[in-house]
Amino acid sequence: MTSKPERRSYLAAAKAFASGTDGPRAFLERCIAEIDARENDVQAFVCLDLAAARRAADASEARWRSGRPLSAIDGMPVGVKDIIETADMPTGMGSPLFTGWQSGRDSASVTALRQAGAVIVGKTVTTEFAASVPGPTRNPWDLARTPGGSSSGSAAGVGCGFLSAGLGTQVVGSIIRPAGFCGVVGFKPSLGGINRGGSHDFASQSCQGVLGASLADTWAVAIEIVNRAGGDPGWPGLQGPVSLPQARRPRTLAFLETTGWAKTSGGLKETMRAALSKLEQAGIAIVTRATSEKVEAVEKVIPQAPVLTRAINAWEGIWPLNIYRDRDATKLSKELHAKLGEAEAMSVNDYRAALTERARIRALYAALAEGVDACITLSAPGPAPLGLASTGDMSFAVPSSLLGVPALTQPLLAEDGLPVGLQLMGFEQKDADLFAVAGAVAQVLSPAG
Amino acid sequence: MTSKPERRSYLAAAKAFASGTDGPRAFLERCIAEIDARENDVQAFVCLDLAAARRAADASEARWRSGRPLSAIDGMPVGVKDIIETADMPTGMGSPLFTGWQSGRDSASVTALRQAGAVIVGKTVTTEFAASVPGPTRNPWDLARTPGGSSSGSAAGVGCGFLSAGLGTQVVGSIIRPAGFCGVVGFKPSLGGINRGGSHDFASQSCQGVLGASLADTWAVAIEIVNRAGGDPGWPGLQGPVSLPQARRPRTLAFLETTGWAKTSGGLKETMRAALSKLEQAGIAIVTRATSEKVEAVEKVIPQAPVLTRAINAWEGIWPLNIYRDRDATKLSKELHAKLGEAEAMSVNDYRAALTERARIRALYAALAEGVDACITLSAPGPAPLGLASTGDMSFAVPSSLLGVPALTQPLLAEDGLPVGLQLMGFEQKDADLFAVAGAVAQVLSPAG
Repeated sequence: MTSKPERRSYLAAAKAFASGTDGPRAFLERCIAEIDARENDVQAFVCLDLAAARRAADASEARWRSGRPLSAIDGMPVGVKDIIETADMPTGMGSPLFTGWQSGRDSASVTALRQAGAVIVGKTVTTEFAASVPGPTRNPWDLARTPGGSSSGSAAGVGCGFLSAGLGTQVVGSIIRPAGFCGVVGFKPSLGGINRGGSHDFASQSCQGVLGASLADTWAVAIEIVNRAGGDPGWPGLQGPVSLPQARRPRTLAFLETTGWAKTSGGLKETMRAALSKLEQAGIAIVTRATSEKVEAVEKVIPQAPVLTRAINAWEGIWPLNIYRDRDATKLSKELHAKLGEAEAMSVNDYRAALTERARIRALYAALAEGVDACITLSAPGPAPLGLASTGDMSFAVPSSLLGVPALTQPLLAEDGLPVGLQLMGFEQKDADLFAVAGAVAQVLSPAG
Repeated sequence: MTSKPERRSYLAAAKAFASGTDGPRAFLERCIAEIDARENDVQAFVCLDLAAARRAADASEARWRSGRPLSAIDGMPVGVKDIIETADMPTGMGSPLFTGWQSGRDSASVTALRQAGAVIVGKTVTTEFAASVPGPTRNPWDLARTPGGSSSGSAAGVGCGFLSAGLGTQVVGSIIRPAGFCGVVGFKPSLGGINRGGSHDFASQSCQGVLGASLADTWAVAIEIVNRAGGDPGWPGLQGPVSLPQARRPRTLAFLETTGWAKTSGGLKETMRAALSKLEQAGIAIVTRATSEKVEAVEKVIPQAPVLTRAINAWEGIWPLNIYRDRDATKLSKELHAKLGEAEAMSVNDYRAALTERARIRALYAALAEGVDACITLSAPGPAPLGLASTGDMSFAVPSSLLGVPALTQPLLAEDGLPVGLQLMGFEQKDADLFAVAGAVAQVLSPAG
């Protein structure tokens, strides 16, 4: 590859649409040119439908020209993680059990995206059933490195400007991790934030979310979906203004080490400390486990996040994995066989105990809200690691999944010329507040960005 | 039809299995004889697989003979409501859009039933997408009357001894209503009580439940499923002993009028008052809106249950009904077109307001738990009404759906020679306590039963 990957914000470009100097079709063609140049290397897509995308972009163009776009994201090129159903393309789940499977329907989120005028460019690579076994996608910053997972293709595709946004899902670290590795914004909402109907993620910690070229693109995609399709049944869904919540400088951020800090290299630790200092110089108080008993209480329980999450996800995944195993055991990876085996050794009472412990940890974290505007941490212990066999460490990403709180990573840090995400974690159902804090943090750390 | 419909308890019969005088295959053959005699009239089934049922019963027979049944329900003939997926039979959803549709997999509950040794006899008739448009099923007590809905086939099939139990679902009144009309036990668990994976019911009030020949059969089916498949992800699921919770006489029951009482005939009101007197004579205190401020507070808000439930279900049903409408609008009933139209006129904020009001009503009801063991009421304003075009009034059934609490109806009352259900409503996640109260109430009102 010849040049550094660049993100492609649709909302930034759309400012010129009214003047007629740019439009959705031209924007899409720039995406397609990038796909032509890099997709052979990056392999972000399972399936592309450029003819349909061009038709949708032309229809959007006509709406913009008549001054009546359907929404701020009318015409935005979007990718859909391949565990989320689409009427016009197969949904392969990253599994040979589902190769070419056609559900014949759009998910709730894809239905809403189309209603808002978004252009569905293709299905993006997922790991097997959004778990740990990777697909073919490579990191656009270095093809020898993982893009992260499980929302691998959405992260890589947004990272190098194939798309302005991609749908992702997270139950462990599947949005925050790949977003950090590929240098894009990644947003995992509060529990129930975005309607999961028609997406193959059933777990109680699972959320549908957005990987985007900018904070504004990311927020816009999420809120336009929710205003049409709602959140999960029974949940209020993502709440906030139609435009990106205005940046609002926080009074206090809590720095969380999590179990990831011990795995972080000295260089990146210095980079993180420098960022925290810069925020302090801007008048934002930073509390840590050393200075706050409440933060220390959270740090003490966070090491349980990976183990508890695995137990909870395993039990909740018994069905339908047992059905898929019965259908053709050779088409389920040894990793999922192992997970299913662990789960089948559990009793429903083991699962209940895990839920009780999760609730206790959530309450400890919720107590932070008094006195802390958000938590701040890394999105991974380093940039994307070399190799494609693993999607990387999830230590920094899993806590927000266990906690059910919103998490947002921005590509504000770097190490060895590779992007590293700076992650903010908020409080349940306060997603808009988290975006407001994120805007302010970005202004301090990347005034030009 | 020549004789009064009779329920067929598997757990009662299984007491003779050890002695070898009876067994699962002979039990199944008695069910099949009844099916042969009455199914042409009753039309409980969309699909029957008697060959597979006989094979499963023979396998169960071998396990009983070797003294190693898989569970108390090993060999029990069960029907599966036709919105719940089965690997070996189509799942038709009561809709021409899904006629003959094969998902190729068992639901979580059916998977668990098979693991417990249950014999899946067939798929039972549901209304269209478990909503209001009826299927062909008729009430076995009087073929000119509705069996109720939406779990029509499971109720009718259990009511006349085709099955010892049937799976059902309820989001408005879809278990309590048909169980009452067909003279069977109906159990709608607390929210999240039984894993809904692979069932076409997504709404936040929706529950999978059981219609059974007796309290013991009903409890056994539910608990055997949950001990294998759990509840919905994130919920503890139904909790309690493997055998029917022991009958425990309550100190206090609250009689709830709901909006149904005003529609109830004078004769049935007298029958209900007599039942309440009998319970009082047995030492159980009965409180009412006249004697308890807390009961009055609940009665005052319960009239909102139908309207709030409709709004919440409508919004939550936009997807996938909009997708189905787009696929072939002529195959969606005018009732569902109307509901979808109402929903599409709502905003996500209207939905949020309905959720907030529901939460307020749930809190008022939960306050009853202090001082009241359970609530008692009818399951419908009368026996099954004449005609097959409507599934009947849901006034008495909808409150437990809105409240998310367990509800249990028993065929303990009658009017004009037709069964009427006596309903008990409990408190969230206290389902086993409700069964214990139900056992005691049955002992008082039907000492021989």
